[in-house]
Amino acid sequence: MTFTVFGTGAVGGYYGGRLAEKGNTVHFLARSDYQDIKEKGLTIQSPKGDIYLETPSVFNTAREIPASDALLIALKTTGNANLKDQIAPLVHKGTALIVLQNGLGMEEEFQSWFPHNPVLGGMCFICSRKIAPAVIEHQDYGLMTLGALSPDDLELRNRVGALLEAASVPVTLVDDLHEARWRKLLWNIPYNGLTVALNCNTHDLMTHPDSRHLVRILMEEVVEGAAACGCTIEAEAVDKMLSFTDKMTPYEPSMKLDFNYTRPMEIEYMYDRPLQEASSRGYEMKSVSMLRDQLKFIQNRYL
Amino acid sequence: MTFTVFGTGAVGGYYGGRLAEKGNTVHFLARSDYQDIKEKGLTIQSPKGDIYLETPSVFNTAREIPASDALLIALKTTGNANLKDQIAPLVHKGTALIVLQNGLGMEEEFQSWFPHNPVLGGMCFICSRKIAPAVIEHQDYGLMTLGALSPDDLELRNRVGALLEAASVPVTLVDDLHEARWRKLLWNIPYNGLTVALNCNTHDLMTHPDSRHLVRILMEEVVEGAAACGCTIEAEAVDKMLSFTDKMTPYEPSMKLDFNYTRPMEIEYMYDRPLQEASSRGYEMKSVSMLRDQLKFIQNRYL
Repeated sequence: MTFTVFGTGAVGGYYGGRLAEKGNTVHFLARSDYQDIKEKGLTIQSPKGDIYLETPSVFNTAREIPASDALLIALKTTGNANLKDQIAPLVHKGTALIVLQNGLGMEEEFQSWFPHNPVLGGMCFICSRKIAPAVIEHQDYGLMTLGALSPDDLELRNRVGALLEAASVPVTLVDDLHEARWRKLLWNIPYNGLTVALNCNTHDLMTHPDSRHLVRILMEEVVEGAAACGCTIEAEAVDKMLSFTDKMTPYEPSMKLDFNYTRPMEIEYMYDRPLQEASSRGYEMKSVSMLRDQLKFIQNRYL
Repeated sequence: MTFTVFGTGAVGGYYGGRLAEKGNTVHFLARSDYQDIKEKGLTIQSPKGDIYLETPSVFNTAREIPASDALLIALKTTGNANLKDQIAPLVHKGTALIVLQNGLGMEEEFQSWFPHNPVLGGMCFICSRKIAPAVIEHQDYGLMTLGALSPDDLELRNRVGALLEAASVPVTLVDDLHEARWRKLLWNIPYNGLTVALNCNTHDLMTHPDSRHLVRILMEEVVEGAAACGCTIEAEAVDKMLSFTDKMTPYEPSMKLDFNYTRPMEIEYMYDRPLQEASSRGYEMKSVSMLRDQLKFIQNRYL
């Protein structure tokens, strides 16, 4: 099975790097880093073992990339409005679209663009970031939760999962992709938004009682929102997620890094879509909505 | 009727200044500004006419101030925990306590400390600030809404109101002080908190659609909270308050100035007390609560 990584950043570079390290054919699409990767190779610093790809198959335009069996879509969702046209040259008969983005509703959108291609979703529980051109620092974790949009593609999901596992990526296979997306939001919605709104990291949020209370309130709303959308997240998941985050090294989530570097934030897929879906089922996530409004204000004012 | 201004800042200095200008006996208690006022007098720059008190009756300790008929209590509520002992030397038989502070529940607290003294509440709709030691800049407005905690003191309320009116202070007399306090919160809760949480002024809040939406959501919750507490604020008050603020010169409310100058913020009386009162009547102001938590985080982290 051959892969193309669409977006060689902290996430795409890491997972693509692991697959390439194991000997899989992996093409990398890069933009700002293209020249650096071409000249110096791709470096991934990781507590689970550093990776150095001396001569990766790197491209700066989609049209030149050879056909591959699967696309790992690892660009930020802020670019999704233009993504259909950008990936079209790479989507052939049977090409699997594996969506490694954060948020809700991306897989359904990809499926609507390419109705005959299999669509998988991968939720990446990873702390990683780009620390220099062509250099990714993997800080911690790395589990990928993998599901298929259609039950027809469970076999494909299993094959992709097995290849990732073989490349030292822990994988959890899930049957309900929609529910898994909501479960990921349980972490993403409070921590991404609050670290931006309060200009802090996860440790700050957890150690101040008032922000910790905010995290809990938001999580509880996400649980209710998910339930309205038919996804049961057990109530204990909130406490589990809180203690998990207690143990994390102080961390700035991706949206906080976007804010730091004055890049657009992933508000639409991480906040608007879940709010819309829950609202359409009759549940208003009021605190999530308030956080979303604050993020949009910050986005418009500073980014 | 003689007055003592307890706290010669942007509010106490202005109203006390107007009363003194008109020839009323007014004693001023000042702290950091004491020496400056003593040496240079008290200056109030105002579009409604500048005031210069060359030799005001100024003190830096309560014990030296002669007995007066009324105290204008114009310190921030952040100091209320110690206020009982501080004003005790000035509270004689019949001394009226006129509370010019922002928030909810102050008058009841003063009454509990001094059960036999009349307590009035004055809501000051004023844009003013101290721009230098002994110099207050009155920017706009100045209406005082005046009510009595007990119906026994309506006559006193009328007398105080008449003296203020005679001193060029527009006064609205209200019969329901509790309701008037909630009406003031309709403006104070959204604008004070959001200008801090989003680090901006009123104009910024009104011109970005997302923050404008937040202001409206918070106001609507205050209307509901007030209703739960038996205070009817008509729904149109929200739109009226929004268009009033649209017309204001861009303004940083008092809490934003406290934030700018890293002073404690008036979270307890402006947020905690209304939240508690509404909650005790069965209504949770969820968005107000979220804003309060954010303010407490900011308070603990930066101030």
